[in-house]
Amino acid sequence: MLIRDAEPGDWPAMWAFMKPIIEAAETYPWPPDTTEEWARAYWIERPEPASRLVAEIDGRIAGTVEIHPNLPGQGAHVANAGFMVDPAFGGRGLGRALGEAAIERAARDGFHAMQFNAVVETNERAVQLWHSLGFETLAVIPDGFRHPVRGLVGMHLMYRLLKL
Amino acid sequence: MLIRDAEPGDWPAMWAFMKPIIEAAETYPWPPDTTEEWARAYWIERPEPASRLVAEIDGRIAGTVEIHPNLPGQGAHVANAGFMVDPAFGGRGLGRALGEAAIERAARDGFHAMQFNAVVETNERAVQLWHSLGFETLAVIPDGFRHPVRGLVGMHLMYRLLKL
Repeated sequence: MLIRDAEPGDWPAMWAFMKPIIEAAETYPWPPDTTEEWARAYWIERPEPASRLVAEIDGRIAGTVEIHPNLPGQGAHVANAGFMVDPAFGGRGLGRALGEAAIERAARDGFHAMQFNAVVETNERAVQLWHSLGFETLAVIPDGFRHPVRGLVGMHLMYRLLKL
Repeated sequence: MLIRDAEPGDWPAMWAFMKPIIEAAETYPWPPDTTEEWARAYWIERPEPASRLVAEIDGRIAGTVEIHPNLPGQGAHVANAGFMVDPAFGGRGLGRALGEAAIERAARDGFHAMQFNAVVETNERAVQLWHSLGFETLAVIPDGFRHPVRGLVGMHLMYRLLKL
């Protein structure tokens, strides 16, 4: 597995697995009909300080993370990050590797902490993964996410300091 | 006191008290040098479902609130709101009146709950006000806000259901 900065030419391969994840609407609070144009602008073209990494397995883009300030101005020392992984590459530790890479990159870029605002509680693998990587659940926001199958479910607000 | 929907012509009077609040950078996680153009676009011109109210005292715009979905897509049933009040009109219950109006408007617009992501803990009046209006502190995010005088301080994540 190789983790490197995303390049513009990676986008079509990224969107191929991102689109079904967004359409399923079970883990991301984005409209299921999010356009490719909007997703591309958000994930890889936003002008503010941000990093985007991809994980390659056997020369294929298998997952990605984007890192940006969680808030502007007086809150910009805390990073937020979004992760998407191609389910075809499940079970290979891809999420963990991207999580570790994101923590390392955000720390190197001078962020003080990393915060996740919306880890859906039914996404148990993600919750467990982030706990194992040192994130603490500060709160579960009741009814924060409208799951297409399970209805209103909670979202974990997660946080970890980045001082290494 | 009159609370009504904001109109485009209200903006100059709103910006007059908003600008110093943003520049002080003690309560809002916006860059102190936020431009009027950006603030106006955020506060009164954003295209997504949103409401903006102003409070008038003696014919002058004394405070404002804007209400919008806290997240897109599967999180859009929870409202977020931002409040700014002209300190020249302090002590007249303006914050409370705007808070009550925002709760009522968001409930009427069908929002399920209201969430505040970044109530700075040193802004004790705001914390007390929201508690008194039924908001619960779900978490205090450590070091979430870089206060220009006090350094890194916590931010309250606050939440209340809107079923009336």
